[in-house]
Amino acid sequence: MHIEFKPWEILDRNLFLSARPWFEVWRERVRLPDGRVIPDYYQLVVPDASVVVAITPEQELLTLRQYKHGAGATIWGLPAGFCKNNEHPMDCAQRELLEETGYQAQRWVALGTYVRDANRGGGAVHAFLALNARKVAEPNSDDLEEYRMQCLTMVELLGLIRRRQIKPLGVIAAVLLAHLYLEDQNGAIPGMEGLA
Amino acid sequence: MHIEFKPWEILDRNLFLSARPWFEVWRERVRLPDGRVIPDYYQLVVPDASVVVAITPEQELLTLRQYKHGAGATIWGLPAGFCKNNEHPMDCAQRELLEETGYQAQRWVALGTYVRDANRGGGAVHAFLALNARKVAEPNSDDLEEYRMQCLTMVELLGLIRRRQIKPLGVIAAVLLAHLYLEDQNGAIPGMEGLA
Repeated sequence: MHIEFKPWEILDRNLFLSARPWFEVWRERVRLPDGRVIPDYYQLVVPDASVVVAITPEQELLTLRQYKHGAGATIWGLPAGFCKNNEHPMDCAQRELLEETGYQAQRWVALGTYVRDANRGGGAVHAFLALNARKVAEPNSDDLEEYRMQCLTMVELLGLIRRRQIKPLGVIAAVLLAHLYLEDQNGAIPGMEGLA
Repeated sequence: MHIEFKPWEILDRNLFLSARPWFEVWRERVRLPDGRVIPDYYQLVVPDASVVVAITPEQELLTLRQYKHGAGATIWGLPAGFCKNNEHPMDCAQRELLEETGYQAQRWVALGTYVRDANRGGGAVHAFLALNARKVAEPNSDDLEEYRMQCLTMVELLGLIRRRQIKPLGVIAAVLLAHLYLEDQNGAIPGMEGLA
């Protein structure tokens, strides 16, 4: 058994800023287990998001070369997006993959639910593996950002990570999660053996 | 050469919310390369942070079992924290490792600079590898959160990732970055060969 600490007690919380549908900032007054009261612990409320590691029958991974304003640069990403309204994370993953790349996958695996920022909150991130992904349509995304899909082998993608060219932590994490799952299934894809 | 898209043009920006020293929210009016103007693209400004993968002479990794209010639970983390004022990220990493664990390391390797959220911004994350980390003092952290340090082998840590027990994306990413660096140095640590 791993140690579990007592959660902080939320004494009250006020909406400090609303920038819906993108995010809200809440100011919480919290009591720590030692009795101290913190009057202003801020939490971000952001919709959940899904991110997809999609692999083609040729064992290539679908990546996006995209401008991202938070990075202020063109960076490498994966198909991903926010869950709309009460959309199930898997539905969101399938919709985003289709919209952003025009691909559909034969088999989907949920790789777990994660946090982007353990201090401020800011929305869960659901990671998915999409196997046997094939092109069925043209991309049709309403994203503001310009992007271009690019198929990379795992060796190429790990090479980019090694050279520190992949900037979003969530993308790097999703690659490791996908690899570990595939390894456990004895289905490591060509190039992935290069990870060791 | 990889494709580079034109950055968005920031027409003006206003401080929408200040919760210093923790974060600020800026509302930007931006012009996309296709000419469209978005009146309200929000950016978070958060201090940079450093995160440390520290490895002992016994090839164990220093992890923290800690309550994190953004996750609302006790989770696994790594020594990490915000860069204070104009502190260099490496100085921050060394300070946080010493404060949170009481350990100092013989050799430090910068593993690159990353983004937590490529859409909203929200502070760069600098990843470091700390080799030959040894205990030199008692932990002395002013963190609000309760935590306990725990030494794990790489096999144990990867097992936790496999079982989806490690929630912060940045922690999972840092483990892969550390592994790839060590592999490239022909210095993969015991247990790491289990990654393939």
